[in-house]
Amino acid sequence: MTPPDPRAARSREAVLVAARELLLRHGPAAVTHQRVAEQAGVGRATVYRHWARAELLLLDVMAGADLPFFREPRSPVRPWLHAQLRLLAADLAQPEVRAVALTLMHGALWDTHLAEQRDLFVATLTDRLGAALALAAGTGEAAGLPGADEAAALVAGAVLYRTAMQNGTVSDAFLTRLIDGLATWRAG
Amino acid sequence: MTPPDPRAARSREAVLVAARELLLRHGPAAVTHQRVAEQAGVGRATVYRHWARAELLLLDVMAGADLPFFREPRSPVRPWLHAQLRLLAADLAQPEVRAVALTLMHGALWDTHLAEQRDLFVATLTDRLGAALALAAGTGEAAGLPGADEAAALVAGAVLYRTAMQNGTVSDAFLTRLIDGLATWRAG
Repeated sequence: MTPPDPRAARSREAVLVAARELLLRHGPAAVTHQRVAEQAGVGRATVYRHWARAELLLLDVMAGADLPFFREPRSPVRPWLHAQLRLLAADLAQPEVRAVALTLMHGALWDTHLAEQRDLFVATLTDRLGAALALAAGTGEAAGLPGADEAAALVAGAVLYRTAMQNGTVSDAFLTRLIDGLATWRAG
Repeated sequence: MTPPDPRAARSREAVLVAARELLLRHGPAAVTHQRVAEQAGVGRATVYRHWARAELLLLDVMAGADLPFFREPRSPVRPWLHAQLRLLAADLAQPEVRAVALTLMHGALWDTHLAEQRDLFVATLTDRLGAALALAAGTGEAAGLPGADEAAALVAGAVLYRTAMQNGTVSDAFLTRLIDGLATWRAG
């Protein structure tokens, strides 16, 4: 993945900066070869040379960004978790984000770079969810919690399947059921 | 996907029959271009012509087979569901089956044939799980159940994420938690 010369490295970095700006300002759908090339002031061929498909570029941009998911848990944890899962569902409702998630899952089977990115994403989600659940356990808000990795599989897996496999909408009742299944909750 | 001439159609069918036999006798890892070609009595190039990658052949074989998952629910439903999810987890623990599932999820974004197969798989799982949950509701074994599509997302999504994203083992405690989160259960 390392470009062979400094000029290529500079153009690659310029493209990443431009893509990150487009992502933050206009959302994932804006991260196309055309718009990124314009924003970076490079030819479209340059973008294609580094990223053959738009979702691979978007993936690298999202991997470099500090994703806001499940960050800074607050007490009470239960409504905070509901809001976080709502954000995750809204993001996965966007076709571009879904494409990134599925490219990561699928491509990781053969591509070690993608496997590392997947493992990093999985670890980040697990750590953050684990911190939130530890907070809930510490205040006595939740009891009987699973380990952080199992908790991540329960909540993220369900939202991912609902959006990416079923193309379904994620209702509040669905999220409530998901969270209630995770632990015995008391008013926080 | 339709072969252009009767001879190609015959060789395609012979390959599918051979692949199905290998799958049933020796499991998904046996469905390789080499072994399928030998079993079908055709050249390896013939198999490659119809299916460029082994997991696409395996996918077509599995799509044609009547998958045993969640079929014929029995009362009490709770232990039956546990056993079914154990089978699903064991299958997804095999790299070839995981590759098929992820190829289906990912490829369906661009390929209408794969999207149809994904939708068929999703519908089958939903229908069968729905029948099992209806049985549990009818006997009074379970109350407060979600709709069949949400139930499928809750259980299949969690098992898929645990195996395909986390490369994790699916413990009995994990499955019990999953099932307990689905409804209020009484001894059946």
